[in-house]
Amino acid sequence: MSDPAWQMYCPIPLDENGARITLAHGEGARLTRRLIEEHIQPTFDCPELANLPDAAHIVTDTRRLAVTTDCFVVSPLFFPGGDIGSLAVHGAVNDLAVSGARPRWLTLSLIIEEGLPLAVLDCILKSVANTAKKCCVSVVTGDTKVVPCGTADGLFLNTTAIGELVDPVPPGPQSIQTGDRLIVSGPVGRHGIAVLCAREELEFDPPPSSDSASLIDSVTALRQAVGPNVRAIRDATRGGVSAVLHEWAAACDLTMCLREADIPTSNDIRGACELLGLDPLHVANEGTFVAAIAAEAADDAVKALQLQPQTQHATIIGEATDRQIAPVTIYRTLGREQPLDEPAGAALPRIC
Amino acid sequence: MSDPAWQMYCPIPLDENGARITLAHGEGARLTRRLIEEHIQPTFDCPELANLPDAAHIVTDTRRLAVTTDCFVVSPLFFPGGDIGSLAVHGAVNDLAVSGARPRWLTLSLIIEEGLPLAVLDCILKSVANTAKKCCVSVVTGDTKVVPCGTADGLFLNTTAIGELVDPVPPGPQSIQTGDRLIVSGPVGRHGIAVLCAREELEFDPPPSSDSASLIDSVTALRQAVGPNVRAIRDATRGGVSAVLHEWAAACDLTMCLREADIPTSNDIRGACELLGLDPLHVANEGTFVAAIAAEAADDAVKALQLQPQTQHATIIGEATDRQIAPVTIYRTLGREQPLDEPAGAALPRIC
Repeated sequence: MSDPAWQMYCPIPLDENGARITLAHGEGARLTRRLIEEHIQPTFDCPELANLPDAAHIVTDTRRLAVTTDCFVVSPLFFPGGDIGSLAVHGAVNDLAVSGARPRWLTLSLIIEEGLPLAVLDCILKSVANTAKKCCVSVVTGDTKVVPCGTADGLFLNTTAIGELVDPVPPGPQSIQTGDRLIVSGPVGRHGIAVLCAREELEFDPPPSSDSASLIDSVTALRQAVGPNVRAIRDATRGGVSAVLHEWAAACDLTMCLREADIPTSNDIRGACELLGLDPLHVANEGTFVAAIAAEAADDAVKALQLQPQTQHATIIGEATDRQIAPVTIYRTLGREQPLDEPAGAALPRIC
Repeated sequence: MSDPAWQMYCPIPLDENGARITLAHGEGARLTRRLIEEHIQPTFDCPELANLPDAAHIVTDTRRLAVTTDCFVVSPLFFPGGDIGSLAVHGAVNDLAVSGARPRWLTLSLIIEEGLPLAVLDCILKSVANTAKKCCVSVVTGDTKVVPCGTADGLFLNTTAIGELVDPVPPGPQSIQTGDRLIVSGPVGRHGIAVLCAREELEFDPPPSSDSASLIDSVTALRQAVGPNVRAIRDATRGGVSAVLHEWAAACDLTMCLREADIPTSNDIRGACELLGLDPLHVANEGTFVAAIAAEAADDAVKALQLQPQTQHATIIGEATDRQIAPVTIYRTLGREQPLDEPAGAALPRIC
């Protein structure tokens, strides 16, 4: 934390004399208890947390559950459109939503670097709590570790989300058929570019903003509109839309064929990508999904998604075709069909 | 990772030319997929993992579940008696076991530092898999992040365990009554001292070994023997036996009164604690619990525990009394009764 790049986007004033995390906050004794009782517990208004259980007990009437886990190591901790706390909730609930489950419970683990201002920690905890409330999930248990200065990067989070499976669960990418339409739920590439610009302090006006958001309502709306015609849904996180489509092409042995002109991006993201030499299709999103829908239901699917605020720019970007030379191809605006590379990585680290 | 202290205890030969983790392994694209498919997936023989789900689906016939989450930041990664992988499984399943649940499912999240030898990662993953198998829990989903050199400390793990509640769940420390006996399930202080000696390269012969182990069988045996007479059970991790007893004293407003002569420790741990100026009651355990048992059932409880290999040295170390000046007191071997301090922290960081 020698030069915390997140300061620029941190919504709280930074007081050099403010309380900071010490190693003793992580030792499981008096200071840990005080940290939990004064900072963590009051932030989450949840009866399951009242006795600070090591293990939360969950009572459910359904018998089919889904569980997902994610570590969040984003740098910087704050960025336009979100912070590591809201991101950690959205990432977890979206993984459940696209897998066919309604998110219900959340666990939160913290790895805090010694020296982190307590005010920053509080701010991020509040962000987790507010975001969880909006997503109707309860934070039911957690863990706190503190590591010495120089052995983490400010703060790492882990969230594990548990949800109830709702019917019908989409059959998955192996069920995609020739002619199925590929839908993207909104402009692509926003999250990765927003974080990169914040980290590198690249000056765009206004700065690109992350799409980090819950997809629960949009996925529910999609399912209600065209339920059995949904073949597969996936949030397009690390590796972007391209990574999802490459996985799907491998699963169904078809080619995912896109039209560049139809791919929604905002001007600022397109401009930043051109400057940085990145393809927006390779850039991570945190509130945007890809869906494969049976051809006859695709227009209804788009209409249903466009009624939801988070997915008002949903659109068809291509379709599945018989297998061609490449697993994913793209009709460039100038008219040529080209293979779309599978992202090999390393372009955008530390974005989630 | 400038000077990896775990090398001394790492069970694999370290090859300078062996493959190492790169940032590209964490980008959610081709290299991430290869890392998961070649290193992580084959290590866990679990049908739920076959399609590499972001969210695992769990089918259960019971309706009452328990969930616990823990981040593991132990340094060094390998130590006598265990490693970060076995520790991450034992820590999670023990939290469930003492809370009255039978552990069933586990999630595993990795934060890997760039430069970690892949062979070391494989070794730790195998340790997770073997330990999970012994504990009869399935690793059902996971996540992998890679952070740049210098922004983590080799490897951090998160495990979240989900289990089915079994009846009767112990009523908890607020139910402890005057006269209840306090039982410790084995020699105290082994884990913290073992990790500290490994990290600081203190030379003891033989080196102190961690007690890291599953408590599932012992807790089950205890419950079968004296079920309704169990008031509270807690694994004595960070803060040791002392932290547990201070929490209990606060919950029931009694004094937890110990006899030093009855507290089981091994000679090597006692010697190391004397040298280091530590009280073994403040030192973390990872396979030892404290139980409060109604007086009339205490002898049966000890007998049942002594039949289990992990708790063969279980013994009564004191009892709950009406509230005295201090929440926890100890009859020292020389005859005086003294207050036992609540551990304030910082003595032993990075032990779990």
